Formats: sequence, C-alpha cells, structure tokens
Amino acid sequence: MIFHLADGIAVLERTPETFRALLAGLPDRWTAADEGPETFSPFDNVGHLIHGERTDWILRARIVLTQGANRRFEPYDRFAQVRESQGKSLAELLDEFARLRAQNLATLRGWKLSERELALEGEHPELGPVTLRQLLATWVAHDLGHVAQTTRVMAKQYREAVGPWRLYLPVLDR
Amino acid sequence: MIFHLADGIAVLERTPETFRALLAGLPDRWTAADEGPETFSPFDNVGHLIHGERTDWILRARIVLTQGANRRFEPYDRFAQVRESQGKSLAELLDEFARLRAQNLATLRGWKLSERELALEGEHPELGPVTLRQLLATWVAHDLGHVAQTTRVMAKQYREAVGPWRLYLPVLDR
Repeated sequence: MIFHLADGIAVLERTPETFRALLAGLPDRWTAADEGPETFSPFDNVGHLIHGERTDWILRARIVLTQGANRRFEPYDRFAQVRESQGKSLAELLDEFARLRAQNLATLRGWKLSERELALEGEHPELGPVTLRQLLATWVAHDLGHVAQTTRVMAKQYREAVGPWRLYLPVLDR
Repeated sequence: MIFHLADGIAVLERTPETFRALLAGLPDRWTAADEGPETFSPFDNVGHLIHGERTDWILRARIVLTQGANRRFEPYDRFAQVRESQGKSLAELLDEFARLRAQNLATLRGWKLSERELALEGEHPELGPVTLRQLLATWVAHDLGHVAQTTRVMAKQYREAVGPWRLYLPVLDR
C-alpha cells in the first residue's frame, strides 16, 4: 500500500481512543504487566507514544521540511518513558497522549504537504537518508505496532491460564 | 497471572469499543487488507469474533455447567465469517459484535460462577479435557490476540512505505 497522507492520518487520529477503549479503568494487574526485564507494559506503551509525540515525529518532520544544513535527527530514547511517566496515572497518560496527538495532527494538517515535500529527505542517525513520506508511514506503523504489542503483552499474562488452548493461540508465544 | 472472573470480564467488555475506536470509519483500504490468501482482514477479524459470540464461548460454557452425559464441544469453524459477514458493512458488524458481547457478558455475570463451577470440565474435540476456567481465560486471550492480529495486518500494509525503518518495526515481518 502506497502512503497517502489522508490514510495515515485516519489511523493516527484513532490511536488515542483505541488505547483509551482498551485500557482505561483496567486493573493494574493488566496495565502494569510486561514480558520480563526491559520490556514494555501497556502503561509503558502509552508513555512511549507520548515521548514520541513530544520529541520524535513532528520534530523530525520539521527538520526535513526546513531543509537546513543539518538534517540529521536526534537519536530516539526508547526508555525515556520510565522517567517521564513516573508518578502519573494511566488516566493522565491517556489524556496527555490524546492532547499531544491532536496538537500534532493539527500541525501536520496545517502543513498541507505536497508530493514534492513528502519526497524531501532527512538523515536518520543510524538508517541514513529517509524521506518525509517514510517518516510519516513509520509513525502510523509504529502506532499500530504498539497496539499489537500492548495486546500481546496482555494476552501473555494468560499463557498458563488457558491450559491446552495455548496450542491454538500463537500470540501467547510470540 | 491466575484467571479471576472480574479481570477477564474487564477485558471482554472493552473489546467491542476497542475495535470501534480502531476501525469505525476507516477507508476499506485498511479494513479489507489482509496478509495473503486464507488470512484475516480487520473486517474478517470482527466477523470471526461475532461468530465466536454466537457459537463458541457461552455455548461451550453452558455445556460444561450443565455437566450432561455428552460434554464434548462442537468443532469451531474458523472461516464461518466469510459466509456470515457477506453483504454487511463494517459498521453493522461492529454494532452486532457489541450487542452480542453485551448479551453474553450479562449471561456470564448472571451465572455468578463459584470456584467449584470454574473447575468443572468439558471435552474439547481435539484438546481433550478442559476446565471452564481455561475456557474463559481463552475467551479473553483470543480477544486480545485478534486486536493484535488486526493491528499487525494493518501495520504490514506499510511494510514497503516505511523504507529503511522496517528494520526497527518487527511487527512488519511477523
């Protein structure tokens, strides 16, 4: 599937409500559970997405659009949310994510990006040259990947509880 | 995590709104996309969950609770939704799923299951003896697995569009 801005935005604008529908009000047993050391709980997933809204997608898009002398992105801190989410409730994180995402999508829509602009390049610190179109497609796929991760982590909490059905539920051993 | 009825219901009651938040109003390009022949699109996933509400979870739970002479479950048709969803819109399926799930959870809550009842056994046609507790845990894990599957299928549509970021998005090659 080719990346079209409207398709991408259609997914991006739904992610905060998807996380809210899935997680709001759930017991901590679900939202704090993870897959072991250095892995993300559902709570961590929301914090990670917030960090992306603050420091990644729109900032990198702006670097590409500006086409300044230095188009190299700052490296991304995959564990920043451990620090930034401290002391916050999941309800607060869900609200914060929804608010930041809405702001960022207003910015993105306001740019009214042309095909020419979508083809502009920035420089990823590890991956090298990348286009704005690839960056925005990655924002979308990254959202979807974190919904998948969140539900996989939750499902795995019942790996033993399902008994012999484990055989039919590949998500439990992924 | 041990299966507790209240924890399980907390997830089960959120699944219809999770699918609605994720999928309602999205272009068909997203909701009809799949991973190749004999794989489920997001639309198929919702149809599959509806089929489960009609023919699987509560019916099997009733077989176990009744403890009649024949406690063997009917085999489950994993592709029934191809037939049953025909001619329906995704909006109709989302409503139907929400309605059936609410009914089935009312039934489940009404049973006020005891620990003794949760330990009762039925017979799975392929897996052999299974408890009511395992059946209900499987219902929950199955829901979560289908949210994960739906978002994985959607993410994969951008496998090429993300360019070099594919390396950082394991969900695209799962």
